[in-house]
Amino acid sequence: MAKINENFLNLKQNYLFAEISKRVGEFVTANPNAPLIRMGIGDVTLPLVPAVVEAGKKAFDEMGVKETFRGYEDSGRGYDFLRNAVAGYYKSFGATISADEIFISDGAKSDSGNIGDIFAQDCPVIVVDPAYPVYVDSSIMGGKQVSFADFVGFTAPKNSLIYLCSPNNPTGDAYTYDQLKQIVDSAIASNAVIIYDAAYEAFITEDDKPRSIFMVEGARQCAIEVCSLSKTAGFTGTRCGYTVIPQELEYHNLWRRRQATKFNGVSYPVQRAAEAVFSPEGQKQIQANLAYYKTNAQIITNTLTELGIEFTGGINSPYVWFKCPNNMDSWDFFDLFLNKANVVGTPGVGFGKNGDGWFRLTAFNTLENTQEAMKRLKSIL
Amino acid sequence: MAKINENFLNLKQNYLFAEISKRVGEFVTANPNAPLIRMGIGDVTLPLVPAVVEAGKKAFDEMGVKETFRGYEDSGRGYDFLRNAVAGYYKSFGATISADEIFISDGAKSDSGNIGDIFAQDCPVIVVDPAYPVYVDSSIMGGKQVSFADFVGFTAPKNSLIYLCSPNNPTGDAYTYDQLKQIVDSAIASNAVIIYDAAYEAFITEDDKPRSIFMVEGARQCAIEVCSLSKTAGFTGTRCGYTVIPQELEYHNLWRRRQATKFNGVSYPVQRAAEAVFSPEGQKQIQANLAYYKTNAQIITNTLTELGIEFTGGINSPYVWFKCPNNMDSWDFFDLFLNKANVVGTPGVGFGKNGDGWFRLTAFNTLENTQEAMKRLKSIL
Repeated sequence: MAKINENFLNLKQNYLFAEISKRVGEFVTANPNAPLIRMGIGDVTLPLVPAVVEAGKKAFDEMGVKETFRGYEDSGRGYDFLRNAVAGYYKSFGATISADEIFISDGAKSDSGNIGDIFAQDCPVIVVDPAYPVYVDSSIMGGKQVSFADFVGFTAPKNSLIYLCSPNNPTGDAYTYDQLKQIVDSAIASNAVIIYDAAYEAFITEDDKPRSIFMVEGARQCAIEVCSLSKTAGFTGTRCGYTVIPQELEYHNLWRRRQATKFNGVSYPVQRAAEAVFSPEGQKQIQANLAYYKTNAQIITNTLTELGIEFTGGINSPYVWFKCPNNMDSWDFFDLFLNKANVVGTPGVGFGKNGDGWFRLTAFNTLENTQEAMKRLKSIL
Repeated sequence: MAKINENFLNLKQNYLFAEISKRVGEFVTANPNAPLIRMGIGDVTLPLVPAVVEAGKKAFDEMGVKETFRGYEDSGRGYDFLRNAVAGYYKSFGATISADEIFISDGAKSDSGNIGDIFAQDCPVIVVDPAYPVYVDSSIMGGKQVSFADFVGFTAPKNSLIYLCSPNNPTGDAYTYDQLKQIVDSAIASNAVIIYDAAYEAFITEDDKPRSIFMVEGARQCAIEVCSLSKTAGFTGTRCGYTVIPQELEYHNLWRRRQATKFNGVSYPVQRAAEAVFSPEGQKQIQANLAYYKTNAQIITNTLTELGIEFTGGINSPYVWFKCPNNMDSWDFFDLFLNKANVVGTPGVGFGKNGDGWFRLTAFNTLENTQEAMKRLKSIL
């Protein structure tokens, strides 16, 4: 048969979330009545806000009428109305980018997975460990060599491609301006490019943590930012995100060509729904949802503080990352937490070697479930 | 800077539709009141049918209610309800595939562009000339060597990847069962894989033209089918398609892994809208739209017959492909048709060398515009 891309053979067989699924499935089969609380996968639970629902429905109505029907979107990189709304959003927190630098997409996973297409196969890739598995897996599929670095204090290798995520998945840590400036300076000095995943920016509460890498001096010379409405506005099932590439970088035109060839734009009703996220009404409604999740995060961090367990995150992030009690390893604690407390979390080692002995919980469940899960955590320790 | 993928430098600079846009833009600037009729790009003009609009709106309503909200789609390859509907649709015209072999996507362009990811870079690629530019451009981006073949009568090279499109874009020609069987046999004998683009299958009217390659004996051993609702149901701006890979091919699991890593599924409201395409009500409404376009195609082919101009397509396809009158080359005829008749078509040479001296018109405009365009064609010849 036609030869396969053998780089796929270098992927780990068990994708983290598949393994979790398997173990949870076995547990549920054996304990069908257990009051399971899922705080593992980073999915939201609050519904889309009314402004978004109305915009999506109105757009479907437009699609049903000849005069307002929309076919192919000419540019394939997003309608002006949405790119302008995103540019306005950036401006609202102090990052200046132009609407022409924005590419609308179906999400940060697609973009951070596909962006490798425009870089040479022999580009060295640096991934901060622990990290979202997509950076590593998509790089391996493209035949690129991946090395790992700590969250701060590393030097960018010459001509490398650096994946950063801040607020970080899984640790919940967000870079300060100074930490990010140091990485940007290092990238410029090494002719490296930063792929910056800002999917959790809406959770930042502290002033010294930039919500976009483009708030950092020099970033326009070396950075591409990938972002998503999945966590900002509960778009995990609605699918919309965006990537920003400064026009002065040659990567801008390459990505434009890549998208024009392999992508045909985001559904018009989804783009209208996304536009509503950035309206005054939409922002008001969304802030209420974000506040709900932030309260959950605080319930988790308060409990960990009370128990004397070391943790990061929860302040600028929906993720709380903590050291497994009694020096257990990640999967042992996963099994214990599942079996004794019927709570599903994510074993840190699934995000990389540095995650071994750590555990991730998310703030995306309900308030009641979050409280109950913390009660159970206390009871088993 | 981090090294770019230099294969991008091998792409032709002027994408066909960009060049058309440029020439039309210049014409419109010079002749702002000219009664332009666009029959170039293959975009539809009829709105979404009511069943589809209602389903999309209902799904947005569900997304606004906690109990029916949907976040990440677990599989990322489409909800069961839609994969079952697609499998049922295939069954309705005599192709048996299982719902588990279907991957829902945002369109045939994405899938036919991305499918190269799972094949080795040194896989020889065969593209039928003339062809949709995406097969060639995405192969070049992936560093693959592209050769060209005629529509019929070629032998598959060893271990190659063969892109076929039937009904063909741009020629409108559809393979007969026997022609397709010959290519399938040749692919099996050469250990080649066929990427079969069936985006125009809904336009097939003749019984000896298969609507899916999986109606051809042996195809399960060597074929991947890519399809789309863009032309079937006017989803050019709504975005939904699907790819079928038999489970016995190792490519099935590779594509599954590729999609799990670089894609997060199609928007839930769009999947519900797509499901409605396959409902009895949806099918009835859509058949009326297809009949409208087929009438337009017939108006074009009748005119060409009357004028004694050689053509293909229009019978099983929304495209009519004809020899430029008076042996003009494609771009000369493009300019003449635009300037003298104010009609925009597509120069055949943009689809490959074999398209030189040919021209494509689409049946997707209104009945009135199609009639008027044909009147003008007669008047300038």
